Amino acid sequence: MANKNISMAVIRRLPKYYRYLGDLLDKDIHRISSKELSDIIGFTASQIRQDLNNFGGFGQQGYGYNVEALYSEIGKILGLDNAYNTILIGAGNLGQAIANYGGFKKAGFEIKALFDANPRMIGLKIRDFEILDSEDVEEFVQKNNINIAILCIPKNGAQEMVNRLVKVGIKGIWNFASIDLEVPKDVIVENVNLTESLFTLSYLMKESE
Amino acid sequence: MANKNISMAVIRRLPKYYRYLGDLLDKDIHRISSKELSDIIGFTASQIRQDLNNFGGFGQQGYGYNVEALYSEIGKILGLDNAYNTILIGAGNLGQAIANYGGFKKAGFEIKALFDANPRMIGLKIRDFEILDSEDVEEFVQKNNINIAILCIPKNGAQEMVNRLVKVGIKGIWNFASIDLEVPKDVIVENVNLTESLFTLSYLMKESE
Repeated sequence: MANKNISMAVIRRLPKYYRYLGDLLDKDIHRISSKELSDIIGFTASQIRQDLNNFGGFGQQGYGYNVEALYSEIGKILGLDNAYNTILIGAGNLGQAIANYGGFKKAGFEIKALFDANPRMIGLKIRDFEILDSEDVEEFVQKNNINIAILCIPKNGAQEMVNRLVKVGIKGIWNFASIDLEVPKDVIVENVNLTESLFTLSYLMKESE
Repeated sequence: MANKNISMAVIRRLPKYYRYLGDLLDKDIHRISSKELSDIIGFTASQIRQDLNNFGGFGQQGYGYNVEALYSEIGKILGLDNAYNTILIGAGNLGQAIANYGGFKKAGFEIKALFDANPRMIGLKIRDFEILDSEDVEEFVQKNNINIAILCIPKNGAQEMVNRLVKVGIKGIWNFASIDLEVPKDVIVENVNLTESLFTLSYLMKESE
């Protein structure tokens, strides 16, 4: 499969393709032209053909794309055929919102446990999970083959928690703390910085006034 | 002020500068060189000088940057000196997490009310807010000079809600629903797509294996 040397710009567009293709399958649509795809996604048809050409011959002249094959192939490229074992640290409102969102499990990211350091939270039940004591996180990671940690704790203490997680083999961190984490080269951090997103909105609104 | 024609790439870096400069002020640091700034932000010193030159003469040879002046200027560029009136629609876990986060108010985004369509939620108190009925959102927007809506509702119904909000003058939408919204040209949408962020993490982990 020709997915080497694909630019990060293309990669960042893939989840969007994946989402729209999933919507099409939900609507029982199994075949679509680049023109039709363009109308719903908003990228130009030529951009779409160029992007999808990176991943082999899914489009056929006069037929269009096989939605199912493309969906499945993009899923593989995104690594969604790997079943990741995930833990969530910080069971406040944001952590609970994420734990309650069913879409992640559907995409192969199963949350195996929630952790919190607050004694009043430990032992409470959220969805199917009992909140566990953050003190026990290393043991849990090692026993349950956990790959990804979702970090929903305040920025103070976030780096220390990450150091502990990395030591026991966590390879991916989905970081909601407003801090730039330091990790070894083989550990991936994806940041969700809500304040930065809001500031971008503010800037764009000011510019459009 | 020379902030016309600044590239979107620079703009997207500004919230990060703003955050780090705020941290420096919290630590009572009022003067910093581009080299020191580089060490903490992670951009190269030459990148930093180039970025900040866009906004006028804050750096002085041998002195460095005046942290306070730079912080305040970047804040203005980001429109943070405007006090935006904000409402939040969808008072589930995610909505509550956002309503509970004090940092937004500090940055000038005051949430004036929470709305929900669920009769079991309406009337409940979250922080200082009583949850109001989504049916009444238009009236509230008009009476309270609301500029920004934070959308924390499921994707079904999101476009319809946005149409209603746009009709009564909302100019900015911070969208957490997993849908690409259609809005008139003078309305800004900033999307926070958590699933897409998680998929990017997944891709990068797979690539680094």
